[in-house]
Amino acid sequence: MAGSSFGRILRVTTWGESHGTALGAVLDGFPAGVRLSPDMIQVYLDRRKPGRTKIATQRSEGDLVEILSGVFEGKTTGTPISMMIRNTSQHSSDYDALRNCYRPGHADYTYDKKYGFRDHRGGGRASARETAARVAAGAAAACFLREMGIEICAYTKSIGPVSVDMAAFDASLIQTTPTCMPDAEADKAAMAYLEKCIQERDSAGGVVECRITGLPAGLGDPVFNKLDALLAQAVMSVGAVKAVEIGAGTEAGRMRGSQNNDPFTAGENGIEKRTNHAGGILGGISDGSPVVLRAHIKPTPSIFREQETVDRDGRPILLTIQGRHDPVIVPRAVVVVECMCALTVMDALLVNMTAQSQNIIRFYKQLY
Amino acid sequence: MAGSSFGRILRVTTWGESHGTALGAVLDGFPAGVRLSPDMIQVYLDRRKPGRTKIATQRSEGDLVEILSGVFEGKTTGTPISMMIRNTSQHSSDYDALRNCYRPGHADYTYDKKYGFRDHRGGGRASARETAARVAAGAAAACFLREMGIEICAYTKSIGPVSVDMAAFDASLIQTTPTCMPDAEADKAAMAYLEKCIQERDSAGGVVECRITGLPAGLGDPVFNKLDALLAQAVMSVGAVKAVEIGAGTEAGRMRGSQNNDPFTAGENGIEKRTNHAGGILGGISDGSPVVLRAHIKPTPSIFREQETVDRDGRPILLTIQGRHDPVIVPRAVVVVECMCALTVMDALLVNMTAQSQNIIRFYKQLY
Amino acid sequence: MAGSSFGRILRVTTWGESHGTALGAVLDGFPAGVRLSPDMIQVYLDRRKPGRTKIATQRSEGDLVEILSGVFEGKTTGTPISMMIRNTSQHSSDYDALRNCYRPGHADYTYDKKYGFRDHRGGGRASARETAARVAAGAAAACFLREMGIEICAYTKSIGPVSVDMAAFDASLIQTTPTCMPDAEADKAAMAYLEKCIQERDSAGGVVECRITGLPAGLGDPVFNKLDALLAQAVMSVGAVKAVEIGAGTEAGRMRGSQNNDPFTAGENGIEKRTNHAGGILGGISDGSPVVLRAHIKPTPSIFREQETVDRDGRPILLTIQGRHDPVIVPRAVVVVECMCALTVMDALLVNMTAQSQNIIRFYKQLY
Amino acid sequence: MAGSSFGRILRVTTWGESHGTALGAVLDGFPAGVRLSPDMIQVYLDRRKPGRTKIATQRSEGDLVEILSGVFEGKTTGTPISMMIRNTSQHSSDYDALRNCYRPGHADYTYDKKYGFRDHRGGGRASARETAARVAAGAAAACFLREMGIEICAYTKSIGPVSVDMAAFDASLIQTTPTCMPDAEADKAAMAYLEKCIQERDSAGGVVECRITGLPAGLGDPVFNKLDALLAQAVMSVGAVKAVEIGAGTEAGRMRGSQNNDPFTAGENGIEKRTNHAGGILGGISDGSPVVLRAHIKPTPSIFREQETVDRDGRPILLTIQGRHDPVIVPRAVVVVECMCALTVMDALLVNMTAQSQNIIRFYKQLY
Repeated sequence: MAGSSFGRILRVTTWGESHGTALGAVLDGFPAGVRLSPDMIQVYLDRRKPGRTKIATQRSEGDLVEILSGVFEGKTTGTPISMMIRNTSQHSSDYDALRNCYRPGHADYTYDKKYGFRDHRGGGRASARETAARVAAGAAAACFLREMGIEICAYTKSIGPVSVDMAAFDASLIQTTPTCMPDAEADKAAMAYLEKCIQERDSAGGVVECRITGLPAGLGDPVFNKLDALLAQAVMSVGAVKAVEIGAGTEAGRMRGSQNNDPFTAGENGIEKRTNHAGGILGGISDGSPVVLRAHIKPTPSIFREQETVDRDGRPILLTIQGRHDPVIVPRAVVVVECMCALTVMDALLVNMTAQSQNIIRFYKQLY
Repeated sequence: MAGSSFGRILRVTTWGESHGTALGAVLDGFPAGVRLSPDMIQVYLDRRKPGRTKIATQRSEGDLVEILSGVFEGKTTGTPISMMIRNTSQHSSDYDALRNCYRPGHADYTYDKKYGFRDHRGGGRASARETAARVAAGAAAACFLREMGIEICAYTKSIGPVSVDMAAFDASLIQTTPTCMPDAEADKAAMAYLEKCIQERDSAGGVVECRITGLPAGLGDPVFNKLDALLAQAVMSVGAVKAVEIGAGTEAGRMRGSQNNDPFTAGENGIEKRTNHAGGILGGISDGSPVVLRAHIKPTPSIFREQETVDRDGRPILLTIQGRHDPVIVPRAVVVVECMCALTVMDALLVNMTAQSQNIIRFYKQLY
Repeated sequence: MAGSSFGRILRVTTWGESHGTALGAVLDGFPAGVRLSPDMIQVYLDRRKPGRTKIATQRSEGDLVEILSGVFEGKTTGTPISMMIRNTSQHSSDYDALRNCYRPGHADYTYDKKYGFRDHRGGGRASARETAARVAAGAAAACFLREMGIEICAYTKSIGPVSVDMAAFDASLIQTTPTCMPDAEADKAAMAYLEKCIQERDSAGGVVECRITGLPAGLGDPVFNKLDALLAQAVMSVGAVKAVEIGAGTEAGRMRGSQNNDPFTAGENGIEKRTNHAGGILGGISDGSPVVLRAHIKPTPSIFREQETVDRDGRPILLTIQGRHDPVIVPRAVVVVECMCALTVMDALLVNMTAQSQNIIRFYKQLY
Repeated sequence: MAGSSFGRILRVTTWGESHGTALGAVLDGFPAGVRLSPDMIQVYLDRRKPGRTKIATQRSEGDLVEILSGVFEGKTTGTPISMMIRNTSQHSSDYDALRNCYRPGHADYTYDKKYGFRDHRGGGRASARETAARVAAGAAAACFLREMGIEICAYTKSIGPVSVDMAAFDASLIQTTPTCMPDAEADKAAMAYLEKCIQERDSAGGVVECRITGLPAGLGDPVFNKLDALLAQAVMSVGAVKAVEIGAGTEAGRMRGSQNNDPFTAGENGIEKRTNHAGGILGGISDGSPVVLRAHIKPTPSIFREQETVDRDGRPILLTIQGRHDPVIVPRAVVVVECMCALTVMDALLVNMTAQSQNIIRFYKQLY
């Protein structure tokens, strides 16, 4: 209830501060019998890791995951999977000056108001580093979903004013371009823009788009646990995300019904939609089309310009942030969005097994 | 878990289909000692009621709320508040033709895929009528919050291409204009646009904006239950909402850090922010500024034009929808967004009481 | 969270006070496609109904259930099943004298301490009448379980000093004897004992035993949600229950390991246990043997003798309770225990579907 | 949902297998500002540790706790407290012979049925070693409760046929006698009995009693989350517990109402009960008297006698268990019961803060 858990049947609980001993995730409700190894998780963590390029922080965080429980002889046992990532590259002294300072765009002030004090080193629990635990957990979910034929693919859609040309979409670029854009031209332009931001001691925002394919129709629950509602919670809960769109998203508000409605049609594999303004979800339940969502991400709040702010006692101060900070969060958020979607979809898939009595009865008849 | 409940300490469970006997809400965890009467709830339900104007459906739904439990001698008792609204004006036969038909933009197909069959009358549980129960519950929360000095105010920000001029903002118009716009000019233009939609047997979408004022800093929880994440779930769970923005929202993705960061400053009542791009939430926790969010709403899927679609067996059919349908959902969604925000904020406020040990100890010392 | 909900996938929320307008239950997560009618629920409610015999209160509570949602054309739709029972036979004025009085053995004092005031009429939410809503919900679960071949059978095991002779066990008597004892001799003796209690203006306690048969092995979850742990919560949550035993129960504490261990053996239908001291549960998971539990129930606290107590202000008073009260709660609790077990077991069965990845994959392959 | 989490506001999640790398607990919702160190936790873990005496296993488990997050400069931060205990003394090869064998009284068979396979080493997740994580989490709760003036004290009430003489109760003996009995005579007799069990290659069961004092009246929630219901779940979830009693417990079923009712009276500190058959809980809510409960614990299932059982394929085998096993679980369960009660009570205390609107309003007025 206090905020560090997510999911219903598949339930992840994360813990850890940016400059503490370690951070981790406990994944309960994960089915038994799934092949899982630290290597399979590490692939995802490495995509989140900073230090690959000029636009990512120069910290060489090892981010090596250990699996402490729930896996036996290479397979999940059905009991909680505990994963831990040690903090190894923390320069806590970088933050000494921030102990009593409220950085603009950060959670320093709000944590102090909520808890009375805070672990000020590196943002503590409010650090973007917290997302490493989400990625570890989400990677396990993504591996399971892949076995089910469900693929989740996120990428950078835009950075500042530079947007991907969807006609030039090349999925193979997502994991190789520094911006995680699936378009080499846009990547180049975005990098130039970020270079300019760095020179001007400023930062940029952008958009991550995520497509979920192979999803059967029928996932998601009515009313409050609609699939889009839970995806919105999942994605908005990632620090720095300020808007979430599903399908046509904000555009839907400007469309006519005759444009926005997706006609049903008889496809080769049964009923399909001719268009996908709905983004794969109708009435909160997946409709068999790809689920499409976008997360809008604010610019990195840690900028190297002098900023006006106040200290704990409300006294005005001039702040110049030191340390290592990405000029843009977006590329590193790509895998985080992917992993949050994986956790949400896998949970919906498990919950959905209990929707129809005839399926339940058949399920048990086959077992006993 | 199955989707009809929302909240942690304050937990609402709704039930009911569009054309069933009744629909309702059970509100558990509501504190004892709050003055509450059916009249106080009815005010909110009446704002949601159709039939007030040309652009709302001509059904004269009574939507009279009964309080069945949890209130004794005019005050809440701390036990579940059960509220019921009888369905009185249903023309179920309007829907006979839709029994085997999958309407574009509706949840007919996805409910059938999930549950194997469905109550096809009026959309059943997927009907917008479901929101009446949310409003009943949210109204109780709004009444409590008002006693705490917290006000929630939503309004129509745009319909189709017509947007409110925020310089002309007049809150008194929200509950009197047919569009719920706080700007008489914009209201007039929007009504003209809707008139055109009706003539063209089409429908329009739009945007609802909501401002929450008087909120203390410190509400919301880290990581998954961030205040913005739960608001996103709450608002995205309202049927037809396709995007949710907090503060600068999608604009944040195009801003520079130096623009987006809100400088802290020493105000009369303590620490304040000079701007509010954050929308009143930093790190998932309220910062004392107004919380600002926007819901983007798709055009009414029920349009009177002939549409291509398929039936249950995948056979192509031409569909012409009959019955009574609003050309725009937005104005009736205003109070729904307001009520979902009230439930979310009140829950965050209750959860927040347990954040600091010194406050807990003082709380109990004063009682015992 | 506030206490009126139970279950994970199958989640029941109850509401209502003894002397309010009505009471009811909302059952969310119940699978679609189950045949369900008010008649099927009523059978269970009638077993709980007072007024059948001398030892049950003379109130002719109608206890007629209405199904308000979630059932369409005789089958469940998968959406919340809302059930309501109107209060028709309340003599609220019987309770006027108790407004400021704290009855021994009742929750008057504790509700006042928790909530600041209370609905004093008939015990309000703390009344045994609250269990009618549990029975309505549990009846639906029991009907589903019966389709799965799982039977739940509770009966009175003892009243005061009179115990059933298990060698004389006759299941057909459970629903016909006034005590719900499956043994005509014991029933007669218990009735004589109760007669004496009435004459002495006193009351008696007793024990309900419940057997769950047809349960597959594998239901229940490790650690905190062990099947026995959830059954203990479910049964202890019934007012007046002061102890819960599983299998050998309290006797297990006095046994040796060599006596208590149940040897496994190869039976006709696979692996079986030769004895059942475990009560059908090992490590919190069902083992295929019948689940056996016992609930120990205190004597009715409302007795007609003069009792010493205090009023709201702590002033000593002499209390003589008026009205209609059973000299024993046990027979009416039988169906309540049965229904709480049904809710718990059905939930465990639904959760268990997601335990093994190979079953999940096969499940979806068969559907798509 | 999957079973490894407990609590509402204060929520513990445990993980880890007996012979895995480590086991641990994540405690979310713990208030900020509580002084907490590994030493304070270690005191509790040391009470659970085996190897102190002849009747406890000779494994020298280090059981050293590390706090990995949630504590900064000696105080809790309000974010999840992650605690880990490495497994250091595992002799996994002791279990090779048990890979395909179903030990009587153990969960080998049920885990295989649920999950399809299992980590057979030392019982895996079903091992009593799992309780170390409960103790780590519960110790933190107990430390907080002590600051609130609430003390939880458990002790061995009986082992096999030997019971404590409550007239000889000496609390100082609980942590010094090998049996954890508060009575030196009974301790001696119990030790002699256990000696005999060992000689006969057998084991014994017993009873743990727990008293919770200093609890304010008003904790606990109506209906399903009654304080006694949650305590019953908490305690029954401890492996080997087969019955839970509150107050008069099983005795209540044999009492008359006139005996069982506890008269209220005006005490020095306000309203009190003259007796405490209720065990400190009325209607599921604490009444200000000590909460008293008993857990009945079965004899250790691992006995050194030859036992009949079957293997995975249902073939009869003769089993002789090797390794290190206590002849009685009871003394090591004492601190586990204490810690489960601490978690339950602290959670109830936090939830209770939101019961009355006037207290909520005053709380916030004092803060802002």
